[in-house]
Amino acid sequence: MAKDMTLLWGSGSPPCWRVMIALEEKNLQGYNHKMFSFKKMEHKSEEVMKMNPRGQLPAFKHGDKVLNESYAACLYLENQFKSQGNKLIPDCPAELAMMYQRMLEGLTLHQKMIDVIACYWKVPEEKRPSSAGEWSSESLTTEIKLWEGYLQKTSGGFLAGKTFSLADVCVYPTIFTIFRFRLCEERYPKLAAYYNRLKDRPSIKASWPPTWLENPRGEDIMKDI
Amino acid sequence: MAKDMTLLWGSGSPPCWRVMIALEEKNLQGYNHKMFSFKKMEHKSEEVMKMNPRGQLPAFKHGDKVLNESYAACLYLENQFKSQGNKLIPDCPAELAMMYQRMLEGLTLHQKMIDVIACYWKVPEEKRPSSAGEWSSESLTTEIKLWEGYLQKTSGGFLAGKTFSLADVCVYPTIFTIFRFRLCEERYPKLAAYYNRLKDRPSIKASWPPTWLENPRGEDIMKDI
Repeated sequence: MAKDMTLLWGSGSPPCWRVMIALEEKNLQGYNHKMFSFKKMEHKSEEVMKMNPRGQLPAFKHGDKVLNESYAACLYLENQFKSQGNKLIPDCPAELAMMYQRMLEGLTLHQKMIDVIACYWKVPEEKRPSSAGEWSSESLTTEIKLWEGYLQKTSGGFLAGKTFSLADVCVYPTIFTIFRFRLCEERYPKLAAYYNRLKDRPSIKASWPPTWLENPRGEDIMKDI
Repeated sequence: MAKDMTLLWGSGSPPCWRVMIALEEKNLQGYNHKMFSFKKMEHKSEEVMKMNPRGQLPAFKHGDKVLNESYAACLYLENQFKSQGNKLIPDCPAELAMMYQRMLEGLTLHQKMIDVIACYWKVPEEKRPSSAGEWSSESLTTEIKLWEGYLQKTSGGFLAGKTFSLADVCVYPTIFTIFRFRLCEERYPKLAAYYNRLKDRPSIKASWPPTWLENPRGEDIMKDI
């Protein structure tokens, strides 16, 4: 039981989801946690700001060690609980290199996705183009094609090869979000197969964003990408 | 001799500098390398694009393992050459947590710095405000204050505590760049002390951007921050 850990989180945030998947993979259930609403701007509340002065979620603590950056928390958890739960850093040097490379590239995919979503929400509803294809999604499209290509070339079914690794922990929540916004499964078959295959992985199922369970279909922002 | 490694890089790029510092720290000298000019847009050349389809530098290879993301390259090098050169991941759990946290937060500091520099270069010369204080640098100012605070609280002189770690490898080039753009040393004494103390570290001295040696003073974009 991970009673010495505390996670402040928000539903539907890929960075929060990453940490929750890592905790499940390392058999670190039973941690203290509290959900905050982004809609109500609770991530800027005093309670969050006290733990994370940037007013962002997740905010994560193990004892008095603060790990608010989701990537930092994932790397730390794997390092400190190496022999507990699933091993998330492969031994094979080729897979190891691929894991770090995909994991860090995942930040670019995530940022490009966020840029498109932010662009969509900024425009008043009546003026919104009907799909991402009609606005500044070119850079996201190029990026998604790159990842489809990666999965075409990688055998083994995971981002770094044959084993589920920190690359999947960190990037899967972003890929999931992109499909939630209705990326076309037929147009990106390898990404779609990856997305569907991992849906039922126990760590992912156990930490599925609760607001997405209630409301399973997102806006179709990305349907024409 | 690291003859099975190849680095394509550009002078004055913090991401390139990170990888070069890590290579020095791990005693991996003698790698193949080639410098490209950002001014001449050589990072979009076929030679770079072939190794890094995003057309970004660094592009780094160890044998046939590609590690174009600077953070990925640094993590990989430390993992694969643990007992060679300087150890860059501390054993102490508190320092380890701090190392990952500062390292990943460093990406935010870097992005906010880049935003201010990009904003400066976008404006035609005759219309440029005379300092960053006059434009959108508020978010960079808040960020820099955060880091000054971190160094006030951390004893030991390095970002994660008593030992030079991957956090310093990854964040120092950004802090150096900020001071190159004339951040006021008196206003941020802890950051300035850190900046000055590490200047003479052998790995940093050996990899100092050559165009900065020729031209030691940058524009005074950040003097009023």
